[in-house]
Amino acid sequence: MKQQTCGELDFIERFLRRTSGYVAEKWESRHLVTVASKGDPADLLTEVDLTVQKRFADLLSQTYPHDVLVAEENGLDRVPDPSAERRVWVVDPIDGTYNFVRGMRPIFGISIAFLENGETRCAGVAFPLDNCCYLALRGGGAWCDGRPIRVSDIKKLNEACVEIDFSVMEDRRMFMERASDIMLRAGQIRCCGAAVGGICQVASGESEAYLHMTLHPWDYAAAQLIAEEAGGMATRLDGSPLRVFDGRQGVLISNGAVHREILSVIRP
Amino acid sequence: MKQQTCGELDFIERFLRRTSGYVAEKWESRHLVTVASKGDPADLLTEVDLTVQKRFADLLSQTYPHDVLVAEENGLDRVPDPSAERRVWVVDPIDGTYNFVRGMRPIFGISIAFLENGETRCAGVAFPLDNCCYLALRGGGAWCDGRPIRVSDIKKLNEACVEIDFSVMEDRRMFMERASDIMLRAGQIRCCGAAVGGICQVASGESEAYLHMTLHPWDYAAAQLIAEEAGGMATRLDGSPLRVFDGRQGVLISNGAVHREILSVIRP
Repeated sequence: MKQQTCGELDFIERFLRRTSGYVAEKWESRHLVTVASKGDPADLLTEVDLTVQKRFADLLSQTYPHDVLVAEENGLDRVPDPSAERRVWVVDPIDGTYNFVRGMRPIFGISIAFLENGETRCAGVAFPLDNCCYLALRGGGAWCDGRPIRVSDIKKLNEACVEIDFSVMEDRRMFMERASDIMLRAGQIRCCGAAVGGICQVASGESEAYLHMTLHPWDYAAAQLIAEEAGGMATRLDGSPLRVFDGRQGVLISNGAVHREILSVIRP
Repeated sequence: MKQQTCGELDFIERFLRRTSGYVAEKWESRHLVTVASKGDPADLLTEVDLTVQKRFADLLSQTYPHDVLVAEENGLDRVPDPSAERRVWVVDPIDGTYNFVRGMRPIFGISIAFLENGETRCAGVAFPLDNCCYLALRGGGAWCDGRPIRVSDIKKLNEACVEIDFSVMEDRRMFMERASDIMLRAGQIRCCGAAVGGICQVASGESEAYLHMTLHPWDYAAAQLIAEEAGGMATRLDGSPLRVFDGRQGVLISNGAVHREILSVIRP
Protein backbone atom coordinates (compact mmCIF):
# COMPACT_ATOMS: atom_id res chain seq x y z
CA MET A 1 0.00 0.00 0.00
CA LYS A 2 1.59 3.24 -1.11
CA GLN A 3 1.53 6.08 1.36
CA GLN A 4 -1.48 8.31 0.70
CA THR A 5 -1.44 11.96 1.50
CA CYS A 6 -3.13 15.37 1.36
CA GLY A 7 -1.85 18.93 1.62
CA GLU A 8 -2.10 19.03 5.40
CA LEU A 9 -0.35 15.69 5.84
CA ASP A 10 2.49 16.86 3.58
CA PHE A 11 2.73 19.97 5.74
CA ILE A 12 2.92 17.80 8.89
CA GLU A 13 5.56 15.50 7.43
CA ARG A 14 7.75 18.33 6.21
CA PHE A 15 7.63 20.03 9.61
CA LEU A 16 8.35 16.81 11.50
CA ARG A 17 11.30 15.83 9.30
CA ARG A 18 12.80 19.29 9.46
CA THR A 19 12.33 19.69 13.23
CA SER A 20 13.48 16.20 14.27
CA GLY A 21 17.09 17.03 13.48
CA TYR A 22 16.97 20.10 15.70
CA VAL A 23 15.44 18.12 18.59
CA ALA A 24 17.93 15.26 18.25
CA GLU A 25 20.83 17.75 18.27
CA LYS A 26 19.47 19.45 21.37
CA TRP A 27 19.13 16.05 23.05
CA GLU A 28 22.79 15.27 22.34
CA SER A 29 23.74 18.38 24.33
CA ARG A 30 20.82 18.13 26.78
CA HIS A 31 23.00 19.06 29.78
CA LEU A 32 23.05 22.57 28.26
CA VAL A 33 19.26 22.79 27.78
CA THR A 34 17.31 25.06 30.13
CA VAL A 35 14.77 23.05 32.14
CA ALA A 36 11.96 24.49 34.26
CA SER A 37 9.31 22.79 36.35
CA LYS A 38 5.64 23.58 35.70
CA GLY A 39 4.67 23.06 39.38
CA ASP A 40 4.78 19.31 39.85
CA PRO A 41 8.53 18.51 39.97
CA ALA A 42 7.95 15.82 37.35
CA ASP A 43 6.15 18.16 34.94
CA LEU A 44 9.06 19.69 33.07
CA LEU A 45 9.35 22.29 30.34
CA THR A 46 12.47 22.94 28.29
CA GLU A 47 13.49 25.60 25.80
CA VAL A 48 13.19 22.85 23.17
CA ASP A 49 9.43 22.42 23.81
CA LEU A 50 8.98 26.16 23.42
CA THR A 51 11.12 26.45 20.29
CA VAL A 52 9.39 23.56 18.50
CA GLN A 53 5.97 25.00 19.31
CA LYS A 54 6.99 28.50 18.15
CA ARG A 55 8.41 27.15 14.88
CA PHE A 56 5.18 25.31 14.23
CA ALA A 57 3.05 28.34 15.10
CA ASP A 58 5.11 30.54 12.76
CA LEU A 59 4.93 28.08 9.88
CA LEU A 60 1.22 27.53 10.40
CA SER A 61 0.45 31.25 10.33
CA GLN A 62 2.35 31.54 7.02
CA THR A 63 0.76 28.51 5.39
CA TYR A 64 -2.75 28.33 6.87
CA PRO A 65 -3.20 31.79 8.44
CA HIS A 66 -6.87 31.28 9.38
CA ASP A 67 -6.41 27.95 11.15
CA VAL A 68 -6.49 27.56 14.92
CA LEU A 69 -3.64 26.16 17.01
CA VAL A 70 -4.17 24.23 20.24
CA ALA A 71 -0.89 23.23 21.89
CA GLU A 72 0.48 22.17 25.22
CA GLU A 73 2.64 25.18 26.05
CA ASN A 74 2.38 28.96 26.27
CA GLY A 75 -1.33 29.25 27.06
CA LEU A 76 -2.54 27.55 23.89
CA ASP A 77 -3.88 24.58 25.89
CA ARG A 78 -7.55 25.37 25.39
CA VAL A 79 -10.67 23.85 23.91
CA PRO A 80 -11.55 25.36 20.52
CA ASP A 81 -15.00 26.68 19.76
CA PRO A 82 -16.50 23.98 17.51
CA SER A 83 -18.92 26.33 15.75
CA ALA A 84 -16.42 29.06 14.81
CA GLU A 85 -13.16 27.14 14.57
CA ARG A 86 -13.51 24.67 11.75
CA ARG A 87 -9.83 23.89 11.10
CA VAL A 88 -7.80 23.12 14.21
CA TRP A 89 -4.23 21.88 14.70
CA VAL A 90 -3.41 20.05 17.93
CA VAL A 91 0.28 19.99 18.80
CA ASP A 92 2.48 18.65 21.55
CA PRO A 93 5.95 20.01 20.75
CA ILE A 94 7.64 17.35 22.92
CA ASP A 95 5.57 14.56 24.42
CA GLY A 96 7.82 12.91 27.00
CA THR A 97 9.78 15.95 28.16
CA TYR A 98 10.96 14.19 31.34
CA ASN A 99 12.41 11.43 29.16
CA PHE A 100 14.11 14.05 26.99
CA VAL A 101 15.88 15.28 30.11
CA ARG A 102 16.63 11.85 31.67
CA GLY A 103 16.78 8.23 30.64
CA MET A 104 18.98 5.61 29.03
CA ARG A 105 17.01 5.02 25.80
CA PRO A 106 14.35 7.67 26.17
CA ILE A 107 11.13 7.79 24.19
CA PHE A 108 9.77 11.21 23.29
CA GLY A 109 8.14 12.63 20.19
CA ILE A 110 6.64 15.57 18.35
CA SER A 111 2.89 15.17 17.88
CA ILE A 112 0.73 17.02 15.32
CA ALA A 113 -2.92 16.38 14.45
CA PHE A 114 -5.09 18.27 11.99
CA LEU A 115 -8.83 18.34 12.79
CA GLU A 116 -11.60 19.47 10.49
CA ASN A 117 -15.04 19.97 11.97
CA GLY A 118 -13.95 18.17 15.14
CA GLU A 119 -12.61 15.08 13.43
CA THR A 120 -8.93 14.24 13.00
CA ARG A 121 -8.20 14.17 9.24
CA CYS A 122 -4.48 13.44 9.29
CA ALA A 123 -1.70 13.24 11.85
CA GLY A 124 1.98 12.66 12.38
CA VAL A 125 4.34 11.76 15.21
CA ALA A 126 8.13 12.00 14.87
CA PHE A 127 10.61 10.24 17.16
CA PRO A 128 13.75 12.34 16.70
CA LEU A 129 16.26 9.91 18.23
CA ASP A 130 15.24 7.18 15.79
CA ASN A 131 14.81 9.68 12.98
CA CYS A 132 11.46 8.08 12.17
CA CYS A 133 8.06 9.47 11.42
CA TYR A 134 4.60 7.88 11.85
CA LEU A 135 1.85 9.32 9.64
CA ALA A 136 -1.84 8.61 9.13
CA LEU A 137 -4.61 9.84 6.86
CA ARG A 138 -8.21 9.13 7.88
CA GLY A 139 -9.50 6.35 5.65
CA GLY A 140 -6.12 6.09 3.95
CA GLY A 141 -3.93 4.08 6.32
CA ALA A 142 -0.95 4.50 8.63
CA TRP A 143 2.77 4.33 7.88
CA CYS A 144 6.12 4.47 9.55
CA ASP A 145 8.62 6.06 7.16
CA GLY A 146 6.46 5.08 4.20
CA ARG A 147 5.99 1.46 5.28
CA PRO A 148 2.39 0.48 6.17
CA ILE A 149 1.96 -0.46 9.83
CA ARG A 150 -0.51 -2.82 11.42
CA VAL A 151 -1.53 -3.71 14.98
CA SER A 152 -0.72 -7.16 16.39
CA ASP A 153 -3.21 -10.01 16.49
CA ILE A 154 -2.59 -11.13 20.09
CA LYS A 155 -6.01 -11.78 21.58
CA LYS A 156 -5.56 -12.49 25.30
CA LEU A 157 -4.63 -10.04 28.03
CA ASN A 158 -2.33 -12.58 29.70
CA GLU A 159 -0.27 -12.75 26.50
CA ALA A 160 -0.40 -9.01 25.86
CA CYS A 161 2.11 -6.25 26.51
CA VAL A 162 0.28 -3.30 28.05
CA GLU A 163 1.78 0.15 28.35
CA ILE A 164 0.50 2.05 31.38
CA ASP A 165 1.19 5.45 32.82
CA PHE A 166 1.02 6.41 36.48
CA SER A 167 0.12 10.08 35.79
CA VAL A 168 0.97 12.90 38.11
CA MET A 169 0.90 12.20 41.80
CA GLU A 170 -2.53 13.64 42.57
CA ASP A 171 -4.15 11.13 40.17
CA ARG A 172 -1.99 8.17 41.20
CA ARG A 173 -4.35 6.57 43.75
CA MET A 174 -7.25 6.68 41.32
CA PHE A 175 -5.09 5.06 38.65
CA MET A 176 -3.93 2.28 40.97
CA GLU A 177 -7.48 1.48 42.01
CA ARG A 178 -9.03 1.49 38.56
CA ALA A 179 -6.18 -0.30 36.79
CA SER A 180 -5.12 -2.82 39.42
CA ASP A 181 -6.71 -5.79 37.64
CA ILE A 182 -4.91 -4.89 34.43
CA MET A 183 -1.61 -4.76 36.28
CA LEU A 184 -2.41 -8.19 37.74
CA ARG A 185 -3.47 -9.83 34.47
CA ALA A 186 -1.39 -8.41 31.64
CA GLY A 187 1.37 -10.63 30.29
CA GLN A 188 3.88 -7.79 30.28
CA ILE A 189 3.66 -4.27 31.64
CA ARG A 190 5.77 -1.38 30.48
CA CYS A 191 5.79 2.27 31.41
CA CYS A 192 7.85 4.43 29.05
CA GLY A 193 6.45 7.78 30.15
CA ALA A 194 5.41 9.16 26.76
CA ALA A 195 1.90 8.72 25.34
CA VAL A 196 3.11 8.99 21.75
CA GLY A 197 5.50 6.10 22.38
CA GLY A 198 2.92 3.92 24.07
CA ILE A 199 0.29 4.50 21.38
CA CYS A 200 2.57 4.25 18.33
CA GLN A 201 3.89 0.93 19.66
CA VAL A 202 0.31 -0.36 19.64
CA ALA A 203 -0.05 0.92 16.07
CA SER A 204 3.07 -0.86 14.87
CA GLY A 205 2.27 -4.14 16.62
CA GLU A 206 5.00 -3.88 19.26
CA SER A 207 2.52 -3.89 22.15
CA GLU A 208 -1.19 -4.56 22.50
CA ALA A 209 -2.64 -1.70 24.54
CA TYR A 210 -2.01 1.72 25.99
CA LEU A 211 -3.90 2.96 29.05
CA HIS A 212 -3.91 6.37 30.70
CA MET A 213 -6.37 7.93 33.15
CA THR A 214 -5.61 11.61 32.60
CA LEU A 215 -4.48 12.43 29.08
CA HIS A 216 -4.78 15.81 27.42
CA PRO A 217 -5.89 16.17 23.79
CA TRP A 218 -2.38 17.05 22.51
CA ASP A 219 -1.03 13.85 24.11
CA TYR A 220 -3.13 11.48 22.00
CA ALA A 221 -4.88 13.32 19.13
CA ALA A 222 -2.25 12.41 16.52
CA ALA A 223 -1.28 8.96 17.80
CA GLN A 224 -4.94 7.95 18.13
CA LEU A 225 -5.50 8.33 14.38
CA ILE A 226 -2.26 6.48 13.66
CA ALA A 227 -3.39 3.55 15.83
CA GLU A 228 -6.91 3.52 14.38
CA GLU A 229 -5.66 3.61 10.80
CA ALA A 230 -3.31 0.72 11.67
CA GLY A 231 -6.35 -1.36 12.62
CA GLY A 232 -6.52 -0.48 16.31
CA MET A 233 -9.35 0.69 18.53
CA ALA A 234 -9.60 3.80 20.74
CA THR A 235 -12.20 4.52 23.42
CA ARG A 236 -12.74 6.18 26.75
CA LEU A 237 -12.43 3.86 29.73
CA ASP A 238 -16.18 3.12 29.71
CA GLY A 239 -16.02 2.02 26.07
CA SER A 240 -17.53 5.22 24.68
CA PRO A 241 -15.95 6.86 21.62
CA LEU A 242 -12.71 8.73 22.14
CA ARG A 243 -13.07 12.28 20.87
CA VAL A 244 -10.37 14.91 21.06
CA PHE A 245 -12.22 17.74 22.77
CA ASP A 246 -14.94 16.16 24.87
CA GLY A 247 -13.39 17.32 28.13
CA ARG A 248 -12.74 13.80 29.40
CA GLN A 249 -9.36 12.26 30.16
CA GLY A 250 -9.26 8.44 30.32
CA VAL A 251 -7.91 6.75 27.20
CA LEU A 252 -7.63 3.12 26.11
CA ILE A 253 -6.03 2.44 22.74
CA SER A 254 -5.48 -1.18 21.75
CA ASN A 255 -5.04 -3.59 18.88
CA GLY A 256 -8.80 -4.19 19.06
CA ALA A 257 -8.48 -7.88 19.93
CA VAL A 258 -7.77 -7.26 23.65
CA HIS A 259 -9.97 -4.17 23.95
CA ARG A 260 -13.08 -5.80 25.37
CA GLU A 261 -11.14 -7.85 27.93
CA ILE A 262 -9.32 -4.75 29.19
CA LEU A 263 -12.53 -2.69 29.40
CA SER A 264 -14.11 -5.51 31.42
CA VAL A 265 -11.42 -5.33 34.13
CA ILE A 266 -11.10 -1.53 34.43
CA ARG A 267 -12.87 -0.56 37.63
CA PRO A 268 -15.43 2.22 37.35
CA MET B 1 39.65 9.22 37.45
CA LYS B 2 41.23 6.84 34.97
CA GLN B 3 39.51 3.51 34.50
CA GLN B 4 41.12 0.89 36.74
CA THR B 5 41.17 -2.74 35.81
CA CYS B 6 42.36 -6.28 36.54
CA GLY B 7 42.76 -9.39 34.42
CA GLU B 8 39.19 -10.55 34.94
CA LEU B 9 37.74 -7.12 34.16
CA ASP B 10 39.78 -6.97 30.96
CA PHE B 11 38.38 -10.38 30.08
CA ILE B 12 34.82 -9.14 30.72
CA GLU B 13 35.29 -5.98 28.68
CA ARG B 14 36.81 -7.81 25.70
CA PHE B 15 33.96 -10.33 25.68
CA LEU B 16 31.28 -7.63 25.97
CA ARG B 17 32.73 -5.45 23.23
CA ARG B 18 33.15 -8.39 20.87
CA THR B 19 29.70 -9.86 21.55
CA SER B 20 27.73 -6.59 21.44
CA GLY B 21 28.16 -6.34 17.68
CA TYR B 22 26.75 -9.82 17.17
CA VAL B 23 23.73 -9.08 19.40
CA ALA B 24 23.03 -5.73 17.72
CA GLU B 25 23.18 -7.39 14.28
CA LYS B 26 20.77 -10.10 15.40
CA TRP B 27 18.42 -7.44 16.74
CA GLU B 28 18.40 -5.67 13.38
CA SER B 29 17.05 -8.88 11.81
CA ARG B 30 15.08 -9.98 14.88
CA HIS B 31 12.09 -11.12 12.79
CA LEU B 32 14.36 -14.01 11.70
CA VAL B 33 15.43 -14.97 15.24
CA THR B 34 13.98 -18.17 16.72
CA VAL B 35 11.97 -17.41 19.85
CA ALA B 36 10.68 -19.97 22.35
CA SER B 37 8.66 -19.54 25.53
CA LYS B 38 9.99 -20.97 28.78
CA GLY B 39 6.49 -21.67 30.17
CA ASP B 40 5.14 -18.24 31.06
CA PRO B 41 4.28 -16.66 27.66
CA ALA B 42 6.27 -13.59 28.71
CA ASP B 43 9.40 -15.57 29.65
CA LEU B 44 11.13 -15.83 26.29
CA LEU B 45 14.31 -17.49 25.12
CA THR B 46 15.98 -16.83 21.77
CA GLU B 47 18.85 -18.43 19.90
CA VAL B 48 20.77 -15.23 20.70
CA ASP B 49 20.61 -15.87 24.47
CA LEU B 50 21.93 -19.38 23.91
CA THR B 51 24.70 -18.33 21.51
CA VAL B 52 25.98 -15.55 23.78
CA GLN B 53 26.05 -17.90 26.75
CA LYS B 54 27.83 -20.64 24.78
CA ARG B 55 30.45 -18.19 23.49
CA PHE B 56 31.11 -17.05 27.03
CA ALA B 57 31.30 -20.61 28.34
CA ASP B 58 33.78 -21.58 25.60
CA LEU B 59 36.01 -18.55 26.18
CA LEU B 60 35.90 -19.05 29.94
CA SER B 61 36.95 -22.69 29.69
CA GLN B 62 39.92 -21.65 27.52
CA THR B 63 40.99 -18.74 29.71
CA TYR B 64 40.06 -19.79 33.23
CA PRO B 65 39.41 -23.53 32.92
CA HIS B 66 38.92 -24.17 36.65
CA ASP B 67 36.39 -21.39 37.23
CA VAL B 68 32.68 -22.05 37.72
CA LEU B 69 29.93 -20.61 35.52
CA VAL B 70 26.46 -19.78 36.80
CA ALA B 71 24.16 -18.53 34.05
CA GLU B 72 20.50 -18.09 33.27
CA GLU B 73 20.10 -20.63 30.47
CA ASN B 74 20.82 -24.28 29.74
CA GLY B 75 20.66 -25.65 33.28
CA LEU B 76 23.47 -23.49 34.65
CA ASP B 77 21.05 -21.56 36.88
CA ARG B 78 22.26 -23.01 40.16
CA VAL B 79 23.80 -21.92 43.45
CA PRO B 80 27.54 -22.63 43.60
CA ASP B 81 29.09 -24.49 46.53
CA PRO B 82 30.82 -21.71 48.50
CA SER B 83 33.42 -24.02 50.07
CA ALA B 84 34.58 -25.73 46.88
CA GLU B 85 33.92 -23.12 44.21
CA ARG B 86 36.09 -20.14 44.97
CA ARG B 87 35.98 -18.38 41.58
CA VAL B 88 32.52 -18.00 40.09
CA TRP B 89 31.23 -16.14 37.03
CA VAL B 90 27.59 -15.09 36.97
CA VAL B 91 26.20 -14.40 33.51
CA ASP B 92 22.92 -13.35 31.96
CA PRO B 93 23.50 -13.62 28.20
CA ILE B 94 20.54 -11.29 27.45
CA ASP B 95 18.75 -9.56 30.31
CA GLY B 96 15.54 -8.18 28.78
CA THR B 97 14.86 -10.86 26.18
CA TYR B 98 11.22 -9.78 25.77
CA ASN B 99 12.47 -6.29 24.92
CA PHE B 100 14.92 -7.76 22.42
CA VAL B 101 11.94 -9.33 20.65
CA ARG B 102 9.54 -6.35 20.96
CA GLY B 103 9.66 -2.66 21.66
CA MET B 104 10.29 0.73 20.10
CA ARG B 105 13.53 1.68 21.89
CA PRO B 106 14.17 -1.51 23.80
CA ILE B 107 16.58 -1.87 26.70
CA PHE B 108 18.44 -5.16 27.04
CA GLY B 109 21.99 -6.06 27.98
CA ILE B 110 24.67 -8.67 28.50
CA SER B 111 25.57 -9.05 32.18
CA ILE B 112 28.77 -10.61 33.56
CA ALA B 113 30.00 -10.64 37.17
CA PHE B 114 33.13 -12.26 38.56
CA LEU B 115 32.92 -13.40 42.20
CA GLU B 116 35.80 -14.50 44.38
CA ASN B 117 34.98 -16.17 47.69
CA GLY B 118 31.38 -15.08 47.37
CA GLU B 119 32.09 -11.40 46.74
CA THR B 120 31.77 -9.64 43.37
CA ARG B 121 35.27 -8.43 42.40
CA CYS B 122 34.51 -6.89 39.02
CA ALA B 123 31.59 -6.72 36.61
CA GLY B 124 30.40 -5.46 33.27
CA VAL B 125 27.12 -4.82 31.46
CA ALA B 126 26.94 -4.06 27.73
CA PHE B 127 23.98 -2.43 25.99
CA PRO B 128 24.46 -3.55 22.38
CA LEU B 129 22.05 -1.09 20.74
CA ASP B 130 23.91 1.86 22.21
CA ASN B 131 27.26 0.17 21.74
CA CYS B 132 28.14 1.10 25.32
CA CYS B 133 29.70 -0.79 28.17
CA TYR B 134 29.41 -0.24 31.94
CA LEU B 135 32.28 -1.64 34.03
CA ALA B 136 33.15 -1.70 37.73
CA LEU B 137 36.00 -2.90 39.89
CA ARG B 138 35.39 -3.35 43.61
CA GLY B 139 37.08 -0.48 45.41
CA GLY B 140 38.16 1.02 42.08
CA GLY B 141 35.09 2.79 40.69
CA ALA B 142 32.53 2.48 37.91
CA TRP B 143 32.67 3.69 34.32
CA CYS B 144 30.61 3.91 31.19
CA ASP B 145 32.91 3.64 28.17
CA GLY B 146 35.83 4.83 30.26
CA ARG B 147 34.02 7.84 31.75
CA PRO B 148 33.46 7.68 35.54
CA ILE B 149 29.79 7.50 36.50
CA ARG B 150 28.07 8.71 39.63
CA VAL B 151 24.59 8.36 41.13
CA SER B 152 22.31 11.41 41.37
CA ASP B 153 21.90 13.48 44.53
CA ILE B 154 18.09 13.71 44.52
CA LYS B 155 17.01 13.14 48.11
CA LYS B 156 13.20 12.94 48.16
CA LEU B 157 11.02 10.13 46.86
CA ASN B 158 8.49 12.60 45.45
CA GLU B 159 11.22 14.09 43.26
CA ALA B 160 12.73 10.72 42.33
CA CYS B 161 12.39 8.58 39.25
CA VAL B 162 11.86 4.97 40.37
CA GLU B 163 12.16 2.01 38.04
CA ILE B 164 9.89 -0.86 39.02
CA ASP B 165 9.20 -4.27 37.57
CA PHE B 166 5.94 -6.16 37.80
CA SER B 167 7.57 -9.63 37.65
CA VAL B 168 5.89 -12.70 36.25
CA MET B 169 2.18 -13.02 36.80
CA GLU B 170 2.28 -15.37 39.79
CA ASP B 171 4.23 -12.77 41.81
CA ARG B 172 2.24 -9.78 40.60
CA ARG B 173 -0.24 -9.51 43.49
CA MET B 174 2.55 -9.64 46.06
CA PHE B 175 4.42 -6.91 44.19
CA MET B 176 1.37 -4.66 43.98
CA GLU B 177 0.69 -5.01 47.71
CA ARG B 178 4.23 -4.48 48.91
CA ALA B 179 5.11 -1.67 46.50
CA SER B 180 1.84 0.24 46.36
CA ASP B 181 3.09 3.12 48.53
CA ILE B 182 6.12 3.55 46.30
CA MET B 183 3.89 3.72 43.24
CA LEU B 184 1.80 6.36 45.03
CA ARG B 185 4.71 8.50 46.22
CA ALA B 186 7.46 8.40 43.60
CA GLY B 187 7.84 11.49 41.43
CA GLN B 188 8.14 9.42 38.27
CA ILE B 189 7.69 5.71 37.68
CA ARG B 190 9.18 3.81 34.78
CA CYS B 191 9.14 0.16 33.87
CA CYS B 192 11.62 -0.76 31.14
CA GLY B 193 11.53 -4.52 31.70
CA ALA B 194 15.27 -5.16 32.05
CA ALA B 195 17.05 -5.19 35.43
CA VAL B 196 20.39 -4.22 33.90
CA GLY B 197 18.75 -1.13 32.40
CA GLY B 198 17.01 -0.14 35.61
CA ILE B 199 20.10 -0.57 37.76
CA CYS B 200 22.64 1.00 35.38
CA GLN B 201 20.39 4.06 35.10
CA VAL B 202 20.64 4.44 38.88
CA ALA B 203 24.42 4.08 38.60
CA SER B 204 24.70 6.79 35.97
CA GLY B 205 22.36 9.23 37.74
CA GLU B 206 19.48 8.93 35.25
CA SER B 207 17.07 7.61 37.89
CA GLU B 208 17.11 7.28 41.65
CA ALA B 209 16.04 3.72 42.46
CA TYR B 210 15.35 0.27 41.08
CA LEU B 211 12.98 -2.14 42.81
CA HIS B 212 12.20 -5.77 42.05
CA MET B 213 10.56 -8.44 44.23
CA THR B 214 11.84 -11.58 42.48
CA LEU B 215 15.25 -11.12 40.91
CA HIS B 216 17.68 -13.95 40.18
CA PRO B 217 21.42 -13.57 40.85
CA TRP B 218 22.33 -13.25 37.15
CA ASP B 219 19.85 -10.37 36.80
CA TYR B 220 21.64 -8.08 39.28
CA ALA B 221 25.08 -9.45 40.24
CA ALA B 222 26.99 -7.31 37.73
CA ALA B 223 24.81 -4.19 37.81
CA GLN B 224 24.79 -4.17 41.62
CA LEU B 225 28.58 -3.68 41.76
CA ILE B 226 28.36 -1.00 39.06
CA ALA B 227 25.75 0.91 41.11
CA GLU B 228 27.66 0.51 44.38
CA GLU B 229 30.93 1.65 42.86
CA ALA B 230 29.08 4.67 41.42
CA GLY B 231 28.11 5.67 44.97
CA GLY B 232 24.80 3.83 45.19
CA MET B 233 23.35 1.50 47.80
CA ALA B 234 22.00 -2.05 47.39
CA THR B 235 19.97 -4.03 49.94
CA ARG B 236 17.24 -6.60 50.28
CA LEU B 237 13.78 -5.14 50.85
CA ASP B 238 14.18 -5.33 54.64
CA GLY B 239 17.38 -3.29 54.48
CA SER B 240 19.70 -6.28 54.99
CA PRO B 241 22.80 -6.64 52.78
CA LEU B 242 22.27 -7.76 49.20
CA ARG B 243 24.36 -10.86 48.54
CA VAL B 244 24.39 -12.72 45.25
CA PHE B 245 23.68 -16.26 46.44
CA ASP B 246 21.68 -15.96 49.66
CA GLY B 247 18.59 -17.55 48.13
CA ARG B 248 16.47 -14.43 48.52
CA GLN B 249 14.88 -12.40 45.74
CA GLY B 250 13.82 -8.84 46.63
CA VAL B 251 16.23 -6.13 45.54
CA LEU B 252 16.39 -2.37 46.13
CA ILE B 253 19.23 -0.47 44.50
CA SER B 254 19.26 3.30 44.83
CA ASN B 255 21.38 6.42 44.80
CA GLY B 256 21.62 6.04 48.61
CA ALA B 257 19.87 9.35 49.32
CA VAL B 258 16.35 7.96 48.78
CA HIS B 259 17.10 4.46 50.11
CA ARG B 260 15.80 4.88 53.65
CA GLU B 261 12.58 6.58 52.53
CA ILE B 262 11.82 3.78 50.07
CA LEU B 263 12.57 1.04 52.63
CA SER B 264 10.20 2.78 55.07
CA VAL B 265 7.25 2.53 52.65
CA ILE B 266 7.80 -1.02 51.36
CA ARG B 267 5.22 -3.20 53.06
CA PRO B 268 6.50 -6.34 54.79
